[in-house]
Order: sequence, then C-alpha cells, then structure tokens
Amino acid sequence: MKRREFLKAAAVGAAGSTVAMPAVAQSLPSVKWRIASSFPKSLDTIYGGAEVFAKTLADITDNQFQCQVFAAGELVPPFQTVDAVQNNTVEATHTASYYFWGKDPTFALGCSVPFMLNTRQMNSWFHHGGGNDLLNEFYKGYNIHAIPCGNSGAQMGGWFRKEIKTPGDFQGVKMRISGFAGGVLTKLGLVPQQIAGGDIYPALERGTIDATEWVGPFDDEKLGFYKVAKYYYYPGWWEGTSCYHLMVNLGKWNELPKHYQAAVATAASHANLEMTAKYDARNPGAIRRLVQAGVELRPFSQEVMEACYKASNETYAELNAKNPAFKKIYDSLVAFRGEAYLWHQIAEYSYDTFMIRARARG
Amino acid sequence: MKRREFLKAAAVGAAGSTVAMPAVAQSLPSVKWRIASSFPKSLDTIYGGAEVFAKTLADITDNQFQCQVFAAGELVPPFQTVDAVQNNTVEATHTASYYFWGKDPTFALGCSVPFMLNTRQMNSWFHHGGGNDLLNEFYKGYNIHAIPCGNSGAQMGGWFRKEIKTPGDFQGVKMRISGFAGGVLTKLGLVPQQIAGGDIYPALERGTIDATEWVGPFDDEKLGFYKVAKYYYYPGWWEGTSCYHLMVNLGKWNELPKHYQAAVATAASHANLEMTAKYDARNPGAIRRLVQAGVELRPFSQEVMEACYKASNETYAELNAKNPAFKKIYDSLVAFRGEAYLWHQIAEYSYDTFMIRARARG
Repeated sequence: MKRREFLKAAAVGAAGSTVAMPAVAQSLPSVKWRIASSFPKSLDTIYGGAEVFAKTLADITDNQFQCQVFAAGELVPPFQTVDAVQNNTVEATHTASYYFWGKDPTFALGCSVPFMLNTRQMNSWFHHGGGNDLLNEFYKGYNIHAIPCGNSGAQMGGWFRKEIKTPGDFQGVKMRISGFAGGVLTKLGLVPQQIAGGDIYPALERGTIDATEWVGPFDDEKLGFYKVAKYYYYPGWWEGTSCYHLMVNLGKWNELPKHYQAAVATAASHANLEMTAKYDARNPGAIRRLVQAGVELRPFSQEVMEACYKASNETYAELNAKNPAFKKIYDSLVAFRGEAYLWHQIAEYSYDTFMIRARARG
Repeated sequence: MKRREFLKAAAVGAAGSTVAMPAVAQSLPSVKWRIASSFPKSLDTIYGGAEVFAKTLADITDNQFQCQVFAAGELVPPFQTVDAVQNNTVEATHTASYYFWGKDPTFALGCSVPFMLNTRQMNSWFHHGGGNDLLNEFYKGYNIHAIPCGNSGAQMGGWFRKEIKTPGDFQGVKMRISGFAGGVLTKLGLVPQQIAGGDIYPALERGTIDATEWVGPFDDEKLGFYKVAKYYYYPGWWEGTSCYHLMVNLGKWNELPKHYQAAVATAASHANLEMTAKYDARNPGAIRRLVQAGVELRPFSQEVMEACYKASNETYAELNAKNPAFKKIYDSLVAFRGEAYLWHQIAEYSYDTFMIRARARG
C-alpha cells in the first residue's frame, strides 16, 4: 500500500468506519446482557444495586458493555431467576441467593444465615477467607458464576401484629420470612412463608400472614408494613449481613474477554460497597419517621435470642450431617466468625460503644 | 481505495500495527501514571492498597492504563507526596490525607479525626452524604482530585512503655501520632511527633519516643513495636476509621477520557473495600500472636476516653472558629454522625453485641 492510501485508511479508521472496527471490537467489544432482578423497582436500594452495577460497567467500558435490568416478574418471576440463568434465558440475575435454599440450603450461605458474620466480616470472608472460591466451586454445579454485588447491612427482625416477649410467642405465627431462617423458626412453632417483596403488603393487610420481615427502615417504610403491624423488632438475627449476588451464566462468563471479566467483577465490587453506603445513609431518617408514625420499636429479648440461637445451631447440625457441600462452606464461615469477632470486639466495638453512649448523652 | 487495499489495511489494523492505532487509542488509550505511596513496601495491607488499585485498573483496561507504585521515599518522601502531585512531579499519591494537616487541618477530615465516623459510616458519607463532593471542592484549591482507596477499619490506640491509667499519664509522653490527634493530645501534655511508618521502630527502640500508634495488630506486629513497648491500648479514638485516598493531579484527572475516569474511580472503590477486607482477615491472627508474645492488651479507661473526647471537642471548636473550610466539612460530618449512630445502635450493634457474647461463652 502506498503512503497516501495508508494515510487514507488510517483516517477512515479514526472516523470509526468499518476499517477500524476490528481493532475497536478487539479492545472494547460490544456486549449486551439482560439481568433479571428478584426485587421490585420501587426499592432504589436493593433493586438499585443492579442498576448501579450496570451503569458502572457501562461507564468503564465506554458504553460498550451494556446490561439491561428487569425488575422482579418483568421477564422472570423473582424466585426463578437462578433457573433462568442456568438455562441461559437471561445472562445474569441480581438476587438474594437464599431465595434458592429449596434447591439446596447451601445457596443460603453466601447471602445470609442465622447468627453468622456481620457485613465487614462477610466481605472479608469473600475476598480473604476463601469465600468467593468456595461459593463458586458450589455454584459451578448450577452453571453459575457468582459475584458479591450489594449488601444491606444488619437487618431488622421484622413486623409483628402482636408482641414477641418469649420464644413461645412465635407459636402459630404465619410470617413471611426468607431463606432458611423460616426453617429454623418452625422449630419454635412459626409458620414461614416465602413471598416476594412486592407481594408482602397485601398478604399482611389481608391477614394471610401475621408478620413479615423484609430489610430495614428505608425499604420497609416504602412497602408500608407499619400501617398494618406496629411492633418492629431488632436485630434480624438471621441477617446480621445480607449479601446480594450477581449470578452469571457460566458459559456467558467464560466467553467474556479477561478484561471484561475484570470489569464485571470490579463494577460489582463498587456496587457492593455502594449499596451498603446507601442503606446506611437512608435508614436513619426512615427509622425516625417510623417511630414518629407510632411504630413500637422492640429488641428481641435475650431469652428469645437464645432460643433462636439454639434452634439455628440444631438446624446447622442437621444440615451438616447430611449435606457435605453445606458443611464445607459452613465450617469455613464458622471458623472465620470465631476469629473475626475476636478482633471485632476490640477496637471496632469498643469505639462504637463509646460513640453510641456519647451520642445518647447528647 | 480499492477493495484489495481496503482489506489489507483492515488486516494490518487487526494485527495491531500503526494503521489501527488511532482506533485502539480511541477506545483504550495507553496511559502511564506514577503513584507515590506514603507507606513502606513491607506493609502489604496499606501499601498494598495502591497495588490492588493499579492491578485492578490494568485488568479492566486490558493493561492499557498502567500505574507504577513507588514506596515511601523511593521517588518522594512520604510526607511530601501531596506537594509532588500538586506540582505534577507524579500523577498521583496513595496516602493518608491527615499527614498534610499542617497545610490545613481540613486535610485530616477525609481520612480520620477523633471521635468521628466508623468505617461503614465514612463510606456512606463519601457516597451518599456529600462527602466526596465536599472534599474535592476543598482539594481543588490544591490542584487535586481525591478518591477513597482503602480503609483500615477502627485502629488501635497504640503502644506505650508505661500504663496509661488516667488522663494525667499522657503528661510528657513523647508519642509518634499522626494527623491532628497529636494536636488534641498536647492539651493533655503529650508531645506528638510525626514519623513515617518505616522510621518509627528505631525511634521507639532508641528512646527518641516513648510511645507510638500505627494501625492495628497485623501491621504493628510487622513493624515490631511489641518488642520495645508492651502495653497495647484500644480503641484508637482518633481513628474510628482511617480512609486512604488516591489523590490525583487535577490536570491529569481532567485530561482522562470519561471512561478512564470511571475506571479509576471504580478500581479505587474496589481497592477501598478490599483493603478493609484484608485487614479484617489478617488482624485476628496477629492479635492472638501478640498476646501470646506477652503483649498487655488494655482498653483506655472511660476517664481517659472522656478527657480525650473533651480535648477533641475543644480542638474542633477552635478550628471551626477560624477555618471556614474546616467548619463546612466538619459540620457535614457531625450531622451525619448523629444520624448514623442513631441507626447503627439498633440492628447492627445489637447483633454484634449478641455475637460477641455468644463467642465469649464458647
């Protein structure tokens, strides 16, 4: 090629014609994914996590990697999104993996299980306690690669029409409660129901259920539970942390170029931190408003907490005895928990204790 | 151009020759930055934060955006890195901004100041409390754009040769202590020194100083302080959180394409979460080893904490009276703190309290 033609070709390339496209495609190929969320669009926090992820990924790839997020039920029912990813109906879901504990209770461990890690510890376990690798070893059997992508922090213990003063007060209560905490509470006579976020209020209003838990003040206020159940308990001992994952079809994950895999993981990591940051900023105003609206804020008594702790440990023992995949990850979490709280109680907890007391004094 | 030549040009382009370079450069241009760290290379946690950032940024840009990290003193002395960024000697620094409180105490507010936010709250303030915008409004005057890029969590109160039982015991103690906590402690008679991480041990060993604080068990163990000062106090009330920033020369920041700005911000956000995760995983083993090595772990008494709280509030009042830039950001932090701890004490703290007690019972 002569110099003049060479320059012409380069100029055409710079203008973005087909000449240069192979080179552009090589560096930032165009990829489009559909993400089925398990959450309703009204919750800018938890549903928003997928949107923060998608926007961040688009931003860092110059809009070449685009994810369209669909709210619960738009493409796929909220509790079937993992099946949709397995079958490649959608490339990914943004969900709480414990919704799928019915497939295998092991699904719950990466999201939240009773009396386990707090949020800082969970992120630490994911990245430096072998958590991400252990989970993905398990998820491989479901044709899935999972990446942490959002966390609510410690949740509330939920909304009850009547007071829960002793463990016996759970008897016969029909409660919307997710994951296998519901299974734990059956030991105390509670009747658990798994209902998607958007469908809880009508069930509670009609009396189909007597109680519900969801997340925390900001989300719960939006869903309106305080209008029909006035006792708001804490802490949600089944969700000392609650981590949401981006779960990607393994084939779709493997066919991404390495730098796109890194872009997905990094955007999800940002969305993970960002969601907790958002909850922490939004919850204080909401808890104030709820209390002003007449909500009765109640701690679970020590007796109730101990009974739930015992029931949880019994459930763990049963599962460990019959499910080696569960036991492998559970053992890792429990070992991590012992060490993590050993440290957490020293600088972190003693600092918070002083600050909470100083605030109370005004 | 004829079809044959057209195809030849395209083929050359695909092979990465100069023909296609303009197109490649457009999507993933080659950028090289130098990052001057204020930390010694021996600390894979805090120094490592810049390396995690650099690797993540390279990974998501297909190795086109490369940052070379230089340890404290390699290119720039640790307490002059901000000057080096201002002057464009290096594109960026990874540092604790409170090292530069001598320029203006406002520098300390984005890193850590006494009795302020914890780590979750700090990230929340950055992203959803207006923190990042407020800080960058201030840093603009220094030709800098800053992005959170690492956090140690709540720190320890440091190493002392003698016990600190009452506020009076600080009198005359020569202590290496960073940021303006040293200024606060002068009110209690302490003599503060600012010494870079790598230089502390010899100063403590020779008796040039009587005490030092650094970060927490994992880093402090590596620096060997326990060999020459056996009382290890907590909490570090001057660092309930300690956030490190990537501080970028504003001109260099502005000349990045938008998607590279997003890539830098997102990689830094990942490094932020990742560093805390690493500290939380490494500190437990270190605190065990230190106690086994004979270290005497001591909480600051309530009386000591109260005296330091009072001295801190006096310092804040003095600064607010004469420094409007400081006051503007301080007011934002304090308003956020009140709300954040209102919420934190409910689900999060009550959950941790139960878990810490359950662990202690075994």
